[in-house]
Amino acid sequence: MATRMKLKLKTVFLLYFMVSLLGLIYALMQLGQRCDCTEHDFPKDRTISRLRGELHRLQEEMRKLEVTKQPLKQPAKPSLPTIFVITPTYARLVQKAELTRMSQTFLHVPRLHWILVEDSPHKTPLVTDLLMKSGLTYTHLHMPTAKDRKLQEGDPSWLKPRGVEQRNEGLRWLREDRRAQPGGDNQQGVVYFADDDNTYSLQLFEEMRSTQRVSVWPVGLVGGMKYERPVVEGGKVVRFHTGWRPSRPFPIDMAGFAVSLKLVLANPEACFDGEAPMGLLESSFLQGLVTMDELEPKADNCTKVLVWHTRTEKPKMKREEALQAQGLGSDPAVEHRL
Amino acid sequence: MATRMKLKLKTVFLLYFMVSLLGLIYALMQLGQRCDCTEHDFPKDRTISRLRGELHRLQEEMRKLEVTKQPLKQPAKPSLPTIFVITPTYARLVQKAELTRMSQTFLHVPRLHWILVEDSPHKTPLVTDLLMKSGLTYTHLHMPTAKDRKLQEGDPSWLKPRGVEQRNEGLRWLREDRRAQPGGDNQQGVVYFADDDNTYSLQLFEEMRSTQRVSVWPVGLVGGMKYERPVVEGGKVVRFHTGWRPSRPFPIDMAGFAVSLKLVLANPEACFDGEAPMGLLESSFLQGLVTMDELEPKADNCTKVLVWHTRTEKPKMKREEALQAQGLGSDPAVEHRL
Repeated sequence: MATRMKLKLKTVFLLYFMVSLLGLIYALMQLGQRCDCTEHDFPKDRTISRLRGELHRLQEEMRKLEVTKQPLKQPAKPSLPTIFVITPTYARLVQKAELTRMSQTFLHVPRLHWILVEDSPHKTPLVTDLLMKSGLTYTHLHMPTAKDRKLQEGDPSWLKPRGVEQRNEGLRWLREDRRAQPGGDNQQGVVYFADDDNTYSLQLFEEMRSTQRVSVWPVGLVGGMKYERPVVEGGKVVRFHTGWRPSRPFPIDMAGFAVSLKLVLANPEACFDGEAPMGLLESSFLQGLVTMDELEPKADNCTKVLVWHTRTEKPKMKREEALQAQGLGSDPAVEHRL
Repeated sequence: MATRMKLKLKTVFLLYFMVSLLGLIYALMQLGQRCDCTEHDFPKDRTISRLRGELHRLQEEMRKLEVTKQPLKQPAKPSLPTIFVITPTYARLVQKAELTRMSQTFLHVPRLHWILVEDSPHKTPLVTDLLMKSGLTYTHLHMPTAKDRKLQEGDPSWLKPRGVEQRNEGLRWLREDRRAQPGGDNQQGVVYFADDDNTYSLQLFEEMRSTQRVSVWPVGLVGGMKYERPVVEGGKVVRFHTGWRPSRPFPIDMAGFAVSLKLVLANPEACFDGEAPMGLLESSFLQGLVTMDELEPKADNCTKVLVWHTRTEKPKMKREEALQAQGLGSDPAVEHRL
């Protein structure tokens, strides 16, 4: 009886052993298999891991350097709000030069994300290449201006506002992109509209970084004036120093204000109105977002000019045309623009 | 005995049962986890671009650290020749904006020494302050243009060459200063004349750094052309692509060449001739230094444009003047220039 019981137990034990072993082997084989997705993502993963490695190496080296060096300017602030710079741009002779010096400025600014929107039915190789080589964090978009809204050759520049559709496209992308990020509508960040011919001091970006709703500051060489600026009394903007229609809701140049990302996300309809009468484009965007009373004056209560509305001359091509007539024009193969 | 065996077997069985069960449960839990791929399919591009930006920022910071710090394991290329950039400048509404973006460009270039020469009887506070805050290695000079040589308000810009005395003053200072350095006439270095309205790519400076005697490259948007450039055949400059008097000894814009410091020191008389006929200013300096045959073509045999002769529009001050007439002009106390 005991022997039979022993044998029965042995059989059960062996059976169970084999079954569970097979199960385990199957499970282990499953574990060994790769996810399907990893294959097509492989080069990207490799890039990311290479970049991470490089970053880590540099951080290590930096740390060593900092140890031997006196207290460094400031430790990398991880909580620094990102500045999203929306720039409309269009093809012209000076475009590459302008974008080149602009990218050099931005390269000095920590946590800046450049949203460059071409006025074009497609992304151009010139801008694609320039952004790729820039070393900046960027997003490359394009949006052609509707024909009836486009400035024609010879039109005065004030006739129709330029860059409206492009700025709105930048806003659209930003809202969509940010919704997908953790934090939803409550993300730290600043939105600034920077045209590609202005001149920006580096200090300007540190001033705007603390924007809570809408911050403002003077703009140099604009509107036929040495500068335009909000006039501040008791810490509040009470009126505007401008040479033209100071009664406009916000007589501020595009370069003279920044908006917090929160406010942009909380007002998904806010955008620029291309049909707004002359000088009211900025107001068309700001009107729904803020009141004059709420404006946050920066740059020492709006007493310092940190951005200039410079304009680059359209180069004359007289000799080029003369040479072209003789079949001796500049060789398009020489990368005068690319 | 049999009972003991039975009990022992039972214990072993139970123990094995529990252990293998735990193993199976663990394996099954592992199987239940989702592949990561679905989550970071599209944000990978963003990660890459963010990492690239971060990497670049760190590299920049590293460079700055290495510049200020000396004893490093890998010597921070002590043999890198210094680029001495001589820039003439004069007071005008856009001066601060122009110098601001220029200084931002130079801040990216290692071993650059900026020699800024004001067309003024004294150093102005605007330039003094800007240089002081620039973070650059610089020398601040001044040299007023003789009255009879100065362009008058309304003169066309080609009537008299601008910046002649200032460039010569820069050369004078450089020769005097270098003579006092160890190495005498045999010092590594490059001299470049950079006007304050042009646009300079960062690559340009790395191209010119290896100059042995005189190096040359194309200049964009100059002389009524998309670009002017030396034409290279078999590694030698054989002629010039220019829209105007190609027979000039050196039909090259000021921005289109650099000279080695050695050559400048070895020819203490070489300077710019303010009385040279129109278009021959560059030739007046280069003629005594080099022959066309000796020119060193840079920028991929002069096929790439890395510098642009951009010009900034003179801002209109109509509204400023109107307001001033009413006593409401811009407050000089607001630092619109300083």
